[in-house]
Amino acid sequence: MKIAIKDLRSKVLTALSQNGLTEEQNLCIAEQVIWADMSGIKPMGVAKLTGTEPLQNMKPTGPITIERETKLSQLIDAGGYPAPLICQQATDVAIRKAEEHGFAMVGVRNTFSSNLAQAFYVEKIASKDLIGIAMARGPASTAPFESIDPLFATNPIGFSFPTNGEPLVFDMTTAAMTWSGLILAKANGETLPPNIAIDPEGSPTTDPKAAMAGATLPFDGSYKGSGLGLIVETFGGPLVGSLYCDPALDHEYGSLIMAIDPNLLVDVADFKSHSSDMIQKIKSSRKRPGVDEIRLPGERARKSRKQAMESGLVEIDDSVAHELGWL
Amino acid sequence: MKIAIKDLRSKVLTALSQNGLTEEQNLCIAEQVIWADMSGIKPMGVAKLTGTEPLQNMKPTGPITIERETKLSQLIDAGGYPAPLICQQATDVAIRKAEEHGFAMVGVRNTFSSNLAQAFYVEKIASKDLIGIAMARGPASTAPFESIDPLFATNPIGFSFPTNGEPLVFDMTTAAMTWSGLILAKANGETLPPNIAIDPEGSPTTDPKAAMAGATLPFDGSYKGSGLGLIVETFGGPLVGSLYCDPALDHEYGSLIMAIDPNLLVDVADFKSHSSDMIQKIKSSRKRPGVDEIRLPGERARKSRKQAMESGLVEIDDSVAHELGWL
Repeated sequence: MKIAIKDLRSKVLTALSQNGLTEEQNLCIAEQVIWADMSGIKPMGVAKLTGTEPLQNMKPTGPITIERETKLSQLIDAGGYPAPLICQQATDVAIRKAEEHGFAMVGVRNTFSSNLAQAFYVEKIASKDLIGIAMARGPASTAPFESIDPLFATNPIGFSFPTNGEPLVFDMTTAAMTWSGLILAKANGETLPPNIAIDPEGSPTTDPKAAMAGATLPFDGSYKGSGLGLIVETFGGPLVGSLYCDPALDHEYGSLIMAIDPNLLVDVADFKSHSSDMIQKIKSSRKRPGVDEIRLPGERARKSRKQAMESGLVEIDDSVAHELGWL
Repeated sequence: MKIAIKDLRSKVLTALSQNGLTEEQNLCIAEQVIWADMSGIKPMGVAKLTGTEPLQNMKPTGPITIERETKLSQLIDAGGYPAPLICQQATDVAIRKAEEHGFAMVGVRNTFSSNLAQAFYVEKIASKDLIGIAMARGPASTAPFESIDPLFATNPIGFSFPTNGEPLVFDMTTAAMTWSGLILAKANGETLPPNIAIDPEGSPTTDPKAAMAGATLPFDGSYKGSGLGLIVETFGGPLVGSLYCDPALDHEYGSLIMAIDPNLLVDVADFKSHSSDMIQKIKSSRKRPGVDEIRLPGERARKSRKQAMESGLVEIDDSVAHELGWL
């Protein structure tokens, strides 16, 4: 269904209204959820209000505490507050510290929901003329290479850097499919593409329900995707004092956000001018047969957001709207 | 052929002896080349002494200059010195700065050879209880997703982190095959696996010669591998003041080495204990049918080095030995 952005905002705020947060805090979360749907990243949008662990059920269990702080870093115990809210705060801290010192790394632990799309955080960092890197881990759903046990989460990683135009934003999951993607596929009665998942005995499956009981695979099915998943598990787990390789114990999520000032090595004006030229070289290169336009990472999402802003409307899945009682 | 490590060292030093460097400098380079062959990473070993741009032909054109320096960073103009030598120096600088300040980033430009395996640098960083990240770009050989023009290089990225045992070392190319791999395949009269490369017109090819005239593909053939290649191109190109998306102009290479102290966020002792436990969880998980042992990144290379050290012998390709006049 198509829905007016302002109506969607109001519906999301209503859904979040019983979580014990202030309206201002919930508005931050709502904007991020709607940003994902506007970007066409549906598994990170209002779909997060559905399923067995909906975002609106994430209620603080304690205060937000800074557990460690240096000039270059901060570790935040989120006290059970929703990860998108705390990771927005972490992003602001990373920007402030990197602007002052050239580099910053902020970790977030003790959250029990996904922090949603990494693109959201890194784009904000790049809009301040800094390079952004964001990673997150969560409850295990993905089997490492050669294993059939779920030990890694979806484990997304995002990068962004400034250019003379819009920042380049690249965001990917190291798993072949997100957990939310499995939920959506199940809700829509869809089968999965091949080579995405295995059932609990380790046999290939295209059934989202069997995949949820079994495991998803690394995005490329190889040691490379698995190795990247391991790196994200480490940066979002042991490095931020969060759980790791945790099948079901506590459903904790961990996030890491980094900001780097290009001025540490080169003038940021040169960096932006060269990165813009680099993008131009890629865009104007010879295309594969059947390709209209070479798309850079983040380009489709930005176009989708632009269309949503112009029309004032955003598309959400009927199945999600139905589950939320909006249809 | 099997060759004694000490004989190989002597042969490599002889090959390097006309490059204008000191014997001590060439010993650094020789050790790194032999380390790669001992690790079983043949394209980064003595194979680098063959081909159209052999490592021994890299001769300094100017002094090594520090172009920018901050507490957290250094940008090195290598003056045409071989990249492996300067990147070893860069690694030492990164370690020293990160030990003092918690983070460091060192860039190397104005080199005209590959810096060889990223694993070599990041393992050294992790052996000092720091997290290591290394990336490198070079002359373009890989087509971005949806393009058929070579614009990215092999673009490897390596990560390493300390544990209570050996560091975990993960090193991968973002291209489906290294340029050296193509050279080796051509020399050995081998055909390439499918989905690795395209010819100059963009059609799939398994002929290494056609691939060298055309382009290799991102490792997974998708926007994810291509996006990672783009990130490495950016970090090893515009961020270090090196060239980028450069098909043949100047054959410059750029490298970036980062070191991060886990103490910025958590006690390094806790980090190591948790990362060791994480590895144990992965190693002891249920295996895929047909898998004897779940291998972690870097495990095979370390085993290969251990065997070489115990036997005093290392295996190198006959075709390489022949080209070097050693057979």
